[in-house]
Amino acid sequence: MEISPGILLQSINNPDDLKKLSREQLHQVCDELRQYIIDVVSVHGGHFAASLGVVELSVALHYVYNTPYDQLVWDVGHQAYGHKILTGRRDNFPSNRKYNGLSGFPKRSESNYDTFGVGHSSTSISAALGMAMAAKYKGEDRKSVAVIGDGSMTAGMAFEAMNHAGVADSDVLIILNDNCMSIDPNVGALKEYLTDISTSPTYNKVRDEVWNILGKLPIGKKFSRDMASKLEAGMKGMVSKSSNLFEALKLRYFGPIDGHNITKLVDTLKDLKDIPGPKLLHIVTVKGKGYALAEKDQTKWHAPGLFDKVTGEIFRKKIDSPQPPKYQDVFGHTIIELAEKNNLIMGVTPAMPSGSSLKFMMEKMPDRAFDVGICEQHAVTVSAGLATQGMRVFCNIYSSFMQRAFDQAVHDVAIQKLPVIFCLDRAGLVGEDGPTHHGCYDIPYFRCIPHMVISAPMNEQELRNLMYTAQLDSNTSPFVIRYPRGEGVMPEWKTTFEAIEIGKGRKLKDGKEVAILSFGHPGNFAQAAIRELRTEGIDPAHYDMRFVKPIDEALLHEVFSTYNKVITVEDGATVGGAGSAVLEFMSEHGYHAEVKRLGIPDRLVEHGTLKELHRECGYDAQGIAEAVRSMVKDRITVSAGSITMLG
Amino acid sequence: MEISPGILLQSINNPDDLKKLSREQLHQVCDELRQYIIDVVSVHGGHFAASLGVVELSVALHYVYNTPYDQLVWDVGHQAYGHKILTGRRDNFPSNRKYNGLSGFPKRSESNYDTFGVGHSSTSISAALGMAMAAKYKGEDRKSVAVIGDGSMTAGMAFEAMNHAGVADSDVLIILNDNCMSIDPNVGALKEYLTDISTSPTYNKVRDEVWNILGKLPIGKKFSRDMASKLEAGMKGMVSKSSNLFEALKLRYFGPIDGHNITKLVDTLKDLKDIPGPKLLHIVTVKGKGYALAEKDQTKWHAPGLFDKVTGEIFRKKIDSPQPPKYQDVFGHTIIELAEKNNLIMGVTPAMPSGSSLKFMMEKMPDRAFDVGICEQHAVTVSAGLATQGMRVFCNIYSSFMQRAFDQAVHDVAIQKLPVIFCLDRAGLVGEDGPTHHGCYDIPYFRCIPHMVISAPMNEQELRNLMYTAQLDSNTSPFVIRYPRGEGVMPEWKTTFEAIEIGKGRKLKDGKEVAILSFGHPGNFAQAAIRELRTEGIDPAHYDMRFVKPIDEALLHEVFSTYNKVITVEDGATVGGAGSAVLEFMSEHGYHAEVKRLGIPDRLVEHGTLKELHRECGYDAQGIAEAVRSMVKDRITVSAGSITMLG
Repeated sequence: MEISPGILLQSINNPDDLKKLSREQLHQVCDELRQYIIDVVSVHGGHFAASLGVVELSVALHYVYNTPYDQLVWDVGHQAYGHKILTGRRDNFPSNRKYNGLSGFPKRSESNYDTFGVGHSSTSISAALGMAMAAKYKGEDRKSVAVIGDGSMTAGMAFEAMNHAGVADSDVLIILNDNCMSIDPNVGALKEYLTDISTSPTYNKVRDEVWNILGKLPIGKKFSRDMASKLEAGMKGMVSKSSNLFEALKLRYFGPIDGHNITKLVDTLKDLKDIPGPKLLHIVTVKGKGYALAEKDQTKWHAPGLFDKVTGEIFRKKIDSPQPPKYQDVFGHTIIELAEKNNLIMGVTPAMPSGSSLKFMMEKMPDRAFDVGICEQHAVTVSAGLATQGMRVFCNIYSSFMQRAFDQAVHDVAIQKLPVIFCLDRAGLVGEDGPTHHGCYDIPYFRCIPHMVISAPMNEQELRNLMYTAQLDSNTSPFVIRYPRGEGVMPEWKTTFEAIEIGKGRKLKDGKEVAILSFGHPGNFAQAAIRELRTEGIDPAHYDMRFVKPIDEALLHEVFSTYNKVITVEDGATVGGAGSAVLEFMSEHGYHAEVKRLGIPDRLVEHGTLKELHRECGYDAQGIAEAVRSMVKDRITVSAGSITMLG
Repeated sequence: MEISPGILLQSINNPDDLKKLSREQLHQVCDELRQYIIDVVSVHGGHFAASLGVVELSVALHYVYNTPYDQLVWDVGHQAYGHKILTGRRDNFPSNRKYNGLSGFPKRSESNYDTFGVGHSSTSISAALGMAMAAKYKGEDRKSVAVIGDGSMTAGMAFEAMNHAGVADSDVLIILNDNCMSIDPNVGALKEYLTDISTSPTYNKVRDEVWNILGKLPIGKKFSRDMASKLEAGMKGMVSKSSNLFEALKLRYFGPIDGHNITKLVDTLKDLKDIPGPKLLHIVTVKGKGYALAEKDQTKWHAPGLFDKVTGEIFRKKIDSPQPPKYQDVFGHTIIELAEKNNLIMGVTPAMPSGSSLKFMMEKMPDRAFDVGICEQHAVTVSAGLATQGMRVFCNIYSSFMQRAFDQAVHDVAIQKLPVIFCLDRAGLVGEDGPTHHGCYDIPYFRCIPHMVISAPMNEQELRNLMYTAQLDSNTSPFVIRYPRGEGVMPEWKTTFEAIEIGKGRKLKDGKEVAILSFGHPGNFAQAAIRELRTEGIDPAHYDMRFVKPIDEALLHEVFSTYNKVITVEDGATVGGAGSAVLEFMSEHGYHAEVKRLGIPDRLVEHGTLKELHRECGYDAQGIAEAVRSMVKDRITVSAGSITMLG
């Protein structure tokens, strides 16, 4: 089905075309842009509500600023679809998030208009400030603008950047897009504060008066700027010293204004463009604006999948038989089962109640499960604080976001050997979100840390048993359980809990010639490969490592005493990963087997479906089968004397 | 020399003893505590000025609170000497920071009074909040107190914790110890704000009035609490809505008060102990208080080394001949030399101008070198922002603090392949600061990241050449240069710059039987070992790897084609480190040598001198020599047929 953009949007191939339009025409551009996003996302999928919320802002920014000379940085980037469509990617937009298609996030290699690659939250102010500092140093008059949501504003690095921006004397504009949402509703003191100042009539009245005077000044820029400073100083005196959190950080604060009023936005941005120094514009928007259902249930419509844009029906796969659950839901329901038995259990998530499925526990046990906001660092250390008091905390963080709290995991948890349980959801390749979100690195970055237990379940039952094991008194270590995005393999997954000996893997089958050592979910790919290979007369052994730390030495002695060809399979970086742990063991114990390490190669893996990416990386069933075939192809009968050592 | 504590201090074996004293006696306790710190640190070394600044606070906290049932968390912990002396460690205090002695930081395994191990900044609020949440959940009335400096308050995770604390309804007290200092003077908007509110007469007048009324209420606690709420609400109305940054975050704000007034501190803490919910007490102190020289030059006296407490003379090693410089100074002077030739070079440090020696450039080129505060995350991403504009940024961060910005290095630098240059000072074991500060993990945690170049100089000349190479246009990748704390080996270090081919190691000497592959400064230990071994007729080859990524494949082919016994030496974790990179190469290319990996073992290494710790870990000259000897001891002539493969 061909999707046609509206008539004005059709004429906009880049922001220069947009600038040719009259201010009155911008209303229509916004309508058409919104409609095009709805048309394309309903059919092709992607993030939805965030981009609808900033349609007017996207149009206003490209209308007012001289992009890409002036530089826009979109925080996170879920909301940048309008920006992409306006900057030369309209016709390619249906390829969004598809293999070899457009990225779902701004990306420097995709367009000059994408000044900074994003995906993780709260980087935009630092990046834009760096750009502004460079412009100042070079004597260029280019402007830098960071667009950041109130959810992203809760992360510490946004605060760090403001602490610097306030004194850096650089020409940076921070646009705070306040919609009270992360993916889930935003939480925390800052959110309440923003609501306070958005709804305080006296505060806003003073602001608005000053603003109106400013806006109506018909005189030259120089005068207007001086005037503005004087007025602002006066106003500050009236209201009180440092009356606002952002002004406390030495940013000039403007707003709050309605982020869906395109005229007001254009006027405001034009004025702000001429005001030097660090400043913050607070706009209030509605996530999902213009699509009623999305406005009503913003979490559901953050990334709804395909839907009927008229009826709002979200399409689900047709299901004839019981299907395996998502791993996240196994976590979400299992933690409740465990917490019902062990009253020391608590759950912590940094802003992913829905994505982690901790929301079930938050609803059922609100005094024991917490969303702390987009604050991974705090999430880990508050978990450590709880653990010092004997609590058994399941701290659930996506693997790639765990990078944000690496120091806290090392310094506050591992060094103190506190038994915090890290459930790393979305470990391994994540599919359409691409390189910023792939959870590639947790095995290497945790494997080097003393005291860590690192495990991965091959299926739902294993996840449940690992969770059960981790919360037992017998576990006295930080305990990582990494599992992938998406579904497991067991439709009947509510198995009875069984403790697993920490550091013990399991033999799934004996075999000949080659042993496959898999870690986590890709063990299922190995099983499929083995089924295929057996039809060809090749019969590898298969072991599920379960733990890379402590590694199962008895199991590895068995493997290397029995097989001299070994394939390791993991859903993670092969550099320093589970396969490397096997190599380290092999070297330390004097074995000399041929080892192939399958997993994520040492390069960026772009976006696509999980299936496409597993194929590309060569650790799907087909890739594993090929690796086994290539190892047995030359079938040298290995015996004493066949290996010559050099020396 | 025996150091005697004063008469009152002698009687205080734990806080119960302190509580028996009258309020009037506390003045003397403070004097004696301060004197004892001066006496011991001048003779035994350690951090100095920070603990002097919180003598009164330490005494007041243990006098008022029921420690260790009530829980104190000291942020960073440089300032906790008074706390340690008051909590059973007075007589052992001279062992502070010595091998097998007391830790220089609070440490859970050392004392029940050390509720949370610290070292890195800004963890205390999260930890104390976790403790408070647990107390609330369990229905315990224990109190939690975080003591955090204004420098630590700039790090994002402190803000994340306040964002949560403000809405968590838990009984946590944050004491903001405002002395305008980190190790170097504190910087940023927050610091200016704190100065504003500490010096604003109208603001403080209102506060003080309320405070006085509160303090003078002779009635029961319940009434006083209600009264306080009402008064506070009224006051808020007077001053304006959310008039204070901390109140904006829903913390009840008290202060600022003089942190050296012991009576006022005791009174204040007693009152606050009875006020429920999250609250912040702002105290103003002087770092180095009571030792005039330290008050005057707080950075110098942060950790001055041994000194004559009467004259203030800081003892330096007697020097007869030119000595090698510290690596940090080679960095600090070399970046200026390079920046004088390349006007795109900038320098960034998160609060370590002195420690990194970037201060030289900050003084000489203030528009090109920046201290961004204790904000590692921002430091990395603002560097990335600068790099998008073509700047060549040297971002200097201690290895263990780099953990705090791991995600930013991955997400904002490596994924975008921006050529930010990370100079990781204090990489490897750091000595007396111990496990929180050892830079053990950077090789494994960066080695798994695509696009990273990871290098280590063996000496000053190599450091200069690596810095030179990294800033050339020909380098298009993020470039890590890791070097250790302390001195290099070249008294004449101002060598001419020479470009190094990225990914090329160097052969230092041919040899027999064994090849030593060293990475970075420990190459010097290897050279010493080789000198020793040659006297015994053992003559290993020696290669300086220089890079672990990209690894020098030609060099490794040469090594493994020539030697079947290989020793790798690195000043970092052996799990996943440089030695593992060698194993990965070996496995991928079908070599089967015997490899010993020397470096930091997979356990915590405690504090001590570098010499003691290198010895303990077995990669000093002696350890390397032993490893070589053990490899050649059994001198099996390896030939075809001598290795039997199992299978």
